[in-house]
Amino acid sequence: MSESTDRDARHKARMQRKKALIDEKIAQAQDEYGLLLVHSGNGKGKSSSAFGMVARALGHGIRVGVVQFIKGAASTGEETFFRRFPEEVSYHVMGEGFTWETQDRQRDIAKAQEAWAVARRLLSDESVGLVVLDELNIALKHGYLELDAVLADIEARPLLQHVVVTGRGALPGMIEAADTVTEMSLVKHAFKSGVKAQKGIEF
Amino acid sequence: MSESTDRDARHKARMQRKKALIDEKIAQAQDEYGLLLVHSGNGKGKSSSAFGMVARALGHGIRVGVVQFIKGAASTGEETFFRRFPEEVSYHVMGEGFTWETQDRQRDIAKAQEAWAVARRLLSDESVGLVVLDELNIALKHGYLELDAVLADIEARPLLQHVVVTGRGALPGMIEAADTVTEMSLVKHAFKSGVKAQKGIEF
Repeated sequence: MSESTDRDARHKARMQRKKALIDEKIAQAQDEYGLLLVHSGNGKGKSSSAFGMVARALGHGIRVGVVQFIKGAASTGEETFFRRFPEEVSYHVMGEGFTWETQDRQRDIAKAQEAWAVARRLLSDESVGLVVLDELNIALKHGYLELDAVLADIEARPLLQHVVVTGRGALPGMIEAADTVTEMSLVKHAFKSGVKAQKGIEF
Repeated sequence: MSESTDRDARHKARMQRKKALIDEKIAQAQDEYGLLLVHSGNGKGKSSSAFGMVARALGHGIRVGVVQFIKGAASTGEETFFRRFPEEVSYHVMGEGFTWETQDRQRDIAKAQEAWAVARRLLSDESVGLVVLDELNIALKHGYLELDAVLADIEARPLLQHVVVTGRGALPGMIEAADTVTEMSLVKHAFKSGVKAQKGIEF
């Protein structure tokens, strides 16, 4: 047997074992219900991953609601794009900039509470299959919203509705409540080594 | 001073220091050029984050190219959605399923090389501002493509073109070449505790 044929044969055997394992796992996973997904960590991709899921949901004909709890001067591209589809995406941007831009705690609290009122409407709308609560973790971490009240509203949503919560510093109670938690960690970042934040990539 | 007023004042002072630091960092970041971003790790969100960046780029009027190196039965939502915009997104799906589905190494190699020929065309097209090379890391890890040749083509792209490479197990040479590397780690996953993969979320 040549070295290459041998390598191919070993590859095939390994892949057969892997397929058997994966098929078994899929067969075990029976229940279908709306998931609560949390994207946290200090790395990039927490929000963009949520917006990728919006694209995926729209591809399946699922209606989507988005609430951005913190309007950065930076996050305009996805808003411009998804506002093209007002029948499919209900898009809401709350707040008026990062908290270190505004420096007014009472105003931030009022804005967060207005945003939550919008989120609650989406969380009680059966026609919405996916709700993105972008940067909600930040509002919770600063105490602008009560975790218990937020989790109660999320818990009370329609059975098949998925929810994605993003933002660094997810509170332990949010992680506890979630079905899936992904931590995005920064391994290396061009911005730190002196490259300007770039349109279409950073915002 | 009441406890609440005191807390607000401390908050304001902390946020002012934070803003000063951030403004300084932004001023230092002067250069503008196309970035190479890598999304790796075992967690979710590597591909969906890249597709979120596609949405963001489209919001800025930037044309996008996508090559999916591995067609999972699973990844159909984003394809269906972005194919709605053929003038703005050049979308290519290569391969015929995960390698543990096909179990044929020679065919996988041939498919990966066809896919790379498409990627090269996008990487030499000045009108394309963002190129997504989805699951390229998998093709490299299995040795279906040569890392050096791939990096040379990426290096030779138009100056302002951004590239996003996804897939677990990024090779050290890919990480070395990247401007930004994000590691997506799984903290908790519903799929593991017996919930079926769900349309609009997992695929």
